[in-house]
Amino acid sequence: MIFQRNVWYVAAKSEDVDRQLRRRTILNEPVLLYRTERGEVAAMQDLCPHRFAPLSRGTLFGDIVQCKYHGLRFDALGRCVHNPHGDVITQRMHVRRYPTAERHGFIWIWMGDSAQAEPERIPDLSYMDAPGTRTVHSYIKANYRYDILVDNLLDLSHAEYLHVGSFSAGPAACSKTSVNEERNDVFVVRTMQDGPSLPHLAHLGERIDQTLNIHWRPGQVMNFEIKSTPVGDPSSNGHRARFSHIATPETEGTTHYFMSTTRDYAIDDPKVDAEAALRQVTVIQNEDGPMLDAINAEMHGMELMDMGPVLLPVDVGAIRVRRVMKRLIDEEISGSQNSVSATRSR
Amino acid sequence: MIFQRNVWYVAAKSEDVDRQLRRRTILNEPVLLYRTERGEVAAMQDLCPHRFAPLSRGTLFGDIVQCKYHGLRFDALGRCVHNPHGDVITQRMHVRRYPTAERHGFIWIWMGDSAQAEPERIPDLSYMDAPGTRTVHSYIKANYRYDILVDNLLDLSHAEYLHVGSFSAGPAACSKTSVNEERNDVFVVRTMQDGPSLPHLAHLGERIDQTLNIHWRPGQVMNFEIKSTPVGDPSSNGHRARFSHIATPETEGTTHYFMSTTRDYAIDDPKVDAEAALRQVTVIQNEDGPMLDAINAEMHGMELMDMGPVLLPVDVGAIRVRRVMKRLIDEEISGSQNSVSATRSR
Amino acid sequence: MIFQRNVWYVAAKSEDVDRQLRRRTILNEPVLLYRTERGEVAAMQDLCPHRFAPLSRGTLFGDIVQCKYHGLRFDALGRCVHNPHGDVITQRMHVRRYPTAERHGFIWIWMGDSAQAEPERIPDLSYMDAPGTRTVHSYIKANYRYDILVDNLLDLSHAEYLHVGSFSAGPAACSKTSVNEERNDVFVVRTMQDGPSLPHLAHLGERIDQTLNIHWRPGQVMNFEIKSTPVGDPSSNGHRARFSHIATPETEGTTHYFMSTTRDYAIDDPKVDAEAALRQVTVIQNEDGPMLDAINAEMHGMELMDMGPVLLPVDVGAIRVRRVMKRLIDEEISGSQNSVSATRSR
Repeated sequence: MIFQRNVWYVAAKSEDVDRQLRRRTILNEPVLLYRTERGEVAAMQDLCPHRFAPLSRGTLFGDIVQCKYHGLRFDALGRCVHNPHGDVITQRMHVRRYPTAERHGFIWIWMGDSAQAEPERIPDLSYMDAPGTRTVHSYIKANYRYDILVDNLLDLSHAEYLHVGSFSAGPAACSKTSVNEERNDVFVVRTMQDGPSLPHLAHLGERIDQTLNIHWRPGQVMNFEIKSTPVGDPSSNGHRARFSHIATPETEGTTHYFMSTTRDYAIDDPKVDAEAALRQVTVIQNEDGPMLDAINAEMHGMELMDMGPVLLPVDVGAIRVRRVMKRLIDEEISGSQNSVSATRSR
Repeated sequence: MIFQRNVWYVAAKSEDVDRQLRRRTILNEPVLLYRTERGEVAAMQDLCPHRFAPLSRGTLFGDIVQCKYHGLRFDALGRCVHNPHGDVITQRMHVRRYPTAERHGFIWIWMGDSAQAEPERIPDLSYMDAPGTRTVHSYIKANYRYDILVDNLLDLSHAEYLHVGSFSAGPAACSKTSVNEERNDVFVVRTMQDGPSLPHLAHLGERIDQTLNIHWRPGQVMNFEIKSTPVGDPSSNGHRARFSHIATPETEGTTHYFMSTTRDYAIDDPKVDAEAALRQVTVIQNEDGPMLDAINAEMHGMELMDMGPVLLPVDVGAIRVRRVMKRLIDEEISGSQNSVSATRSR
Repeated sequence: MIFQRNVWYVAAKSEDVDRQLRRRTILNEPVLLYRTERGEVAAMQDLCPHRFAPLSRGTLFGDIVQCKYHGLRFDALGRCVHNPHGDVITQRMHVRRYPTAERHGFIWIWMGDSAQAEPERIPDLSYMDAPGTRTVHSYIKANYRYDILVDNLLDLSHAEYLHVGSFSAGPAACSKTSVNEERNDVFVVRTMQDGPSLPHLAHLGERIDQTLNIHWRPGQVMNFEIKSTPVGDPSSNGHRARFSHIATPETEGTTHYFMSTTRDYAIDDPKVDAEAALRQVTVIQNEDGPMLDAINAEMHGMELMDMGPVLLPVDVGAIRVRRVMKRLIDEEISGSQNSVSATRSR
């Protein structure tokens, strides 16, 4: 599996990176994460270049990491700053550093060419930080490939089967799906007219109109907005839910799965925070999880399109995303080949 | 490992297939098994052709299986009969169905070319159903290759070492083995004259004559008949035991192991049923099991004959079986190549 | 990974081989170990040549091993001495026997060409048996490659980081390392002048002089002698510690790790024995173990030099050992090719 590298990935929730040395594998690479004394995030390869000891087993002195094995020291940019065995420091003793940025409650990391790591390319999730709102982030480690997770989210028609009784009331033959693509983003809109309501929407009536907007971006950032209104009353306030799912590949077969939910009520109530997080995580773990685990096992590490799946109209969003991803990865490969050629021709 | 496909295998005990959706892997393929409302057995690939969800995680409505992931529905013959996403049903949406038959207390399945799945090719085990008899079937999942199991059964000289005290009284140098082959069946006859008796044969004397008949058939169906008589009294009724062992490959390294024992006394006594099953399973699990597990590990997935084993006279039955199996598999391979050629030359 | 074969390896502590049939994997080969009635050590391949049953599951009659599966019998030299199935015994029915010797509290084994297995090639560890001394041997099974273990021991500069508080008092910038090679042995000498003392050396003063001698030999036998004296008083008796570490490859990724400690006081006190063993094993298991496990995982089975490590002056001993090992293994490979050529040209 070839991963896209030149894109911002979510490495961690902000609150999960602190003055401890922590290791997180991202795109199959071991990454050391910690905060400096000033609170900035340091991210570097979690391997000492001497004997390949994980630096995360070392000790933090101020902002300096000392390897637990032979005492080499590295600063927050991965530069070797102390060699107790001879005082010689060569270029090869520096550790690869990864650009990071902190935004919207997440630590973002750039695993590709550092020169391209412009912070303005971080997806704009500022709705999470808007005044009068409260966003709760959750994290689970998922034992399935990131693309199985993305396929699952881009086609919510599965809700009628996998989530019946939790966030679906059952079949909605009255649904329509449309897909748009803009640059590298994919938008899926699913509208339901006069469909079944759910307990928490009972105040809108037994049947409702509903619009679901999904916005997918490279880096596997997916935003969801669901607007529910009484049947035939589109201008009513109705009910709005906003949440996001973000999938960062850990290895070929596992995924860092970040879920966020944003609300505009009871924003200072930690009890509501906990309930919101629990509700979101529980559905994913109990209803999607076993199915995605099973599919991951059935696929034996093969690529979906190589297995000749039957495609249905509901797959249109997921297929569009797969095409964008293929194009971006192909561009990266040919781009890096070009830069190699350029280097060689100098 | 290449499996023989055009043969009837035992998929399950009759009593283990019911109105639940059950998954069983056979020859490395996931199979969905259930009974229709009329009690017929349905067997199809346990993979939805859309997103490769296991259908066994779905729901049974009457005889129709609904996929838990996106609601496609399949009938008991594997045909897609409902697509809630667009109503279009194409040929590729049908699931591979496996022919089955129910006989002698077993569900038989045909994993190869359906056109050849003639029920008359099912091994005749009607002695199990004969009036005045009672047959008890048991099942264990064995963590060793099916051919290690078959080798073990076709050479019961190991009883004197592995089963001493349970169903062997010790060395019987007075034994002779002869092997016959008839079409694709292999017959092993082992006779012991004036050999040691066993506690349950004490009424025949301290020493006995014994004839063991083994009948092996493709599909790894092995029938055993042991006749024990007082020394020099071949016409006496003596004691007769009939049992069978059937080995269906689950994967390259694991086996569905079916054991049956047939008796002509106390045929209505469930307590005797339970004792008979327990006795048979216990010997296999406690005495053969650890040895076969160990041999399976030593062989590291290699083929026996590639490891250059020393062959002994007692191996003659097992070697004959290996030759038949090699011939049958070779014929299948060249047969399927022929049919491919035929198709191409049209 | 190619192992050196023509060298004596430690197979077991003397006290761990007895009248039980025991299996130990060495250089990836299963070895059966037991003592004859006269107390001599028998070592042979732990595989019956018939059906590859482990002989260690068999039964010992006097000095004869009977296979549990079909009753073949082998003497203490691996020769098949009884075939209950036909009485024919062919050359191929003999089991490979490994030369062994018992010395210095260990069973030594020769996994290569038996003709070269001269006992005088066993490393001389007679200091362990000297009058007035007591040697305690310990064993752990290590889940890392033998060369990671050897690298660790040949560069004790890691003590200042990994063992601070246990057997190091902290940085010793006043240390010097020199390395010598003599035939196939490698000697590392590390001297510290006016360095920090340790609690058990408090009687020598707060600061001490120290000389560490490491003697590495093929077969991964490493002897250590540490002499500590008051600063500037090299002729004083000071304190002397002698211990050894021996690493026998079990598989590509695991190691039989033997540790010995020799003392010249309280030589008849079993309580001191137990304390000495516990102290040595505890440091290795609690301090080195997790680090070496982690490095073993990071290396994913690759060869160190193929990973392009940064080398430091402290690595000079370990690198010298790697060169000797490479030369010895290359010689073995070309030697066995020569003998094949020679055989062919006859």
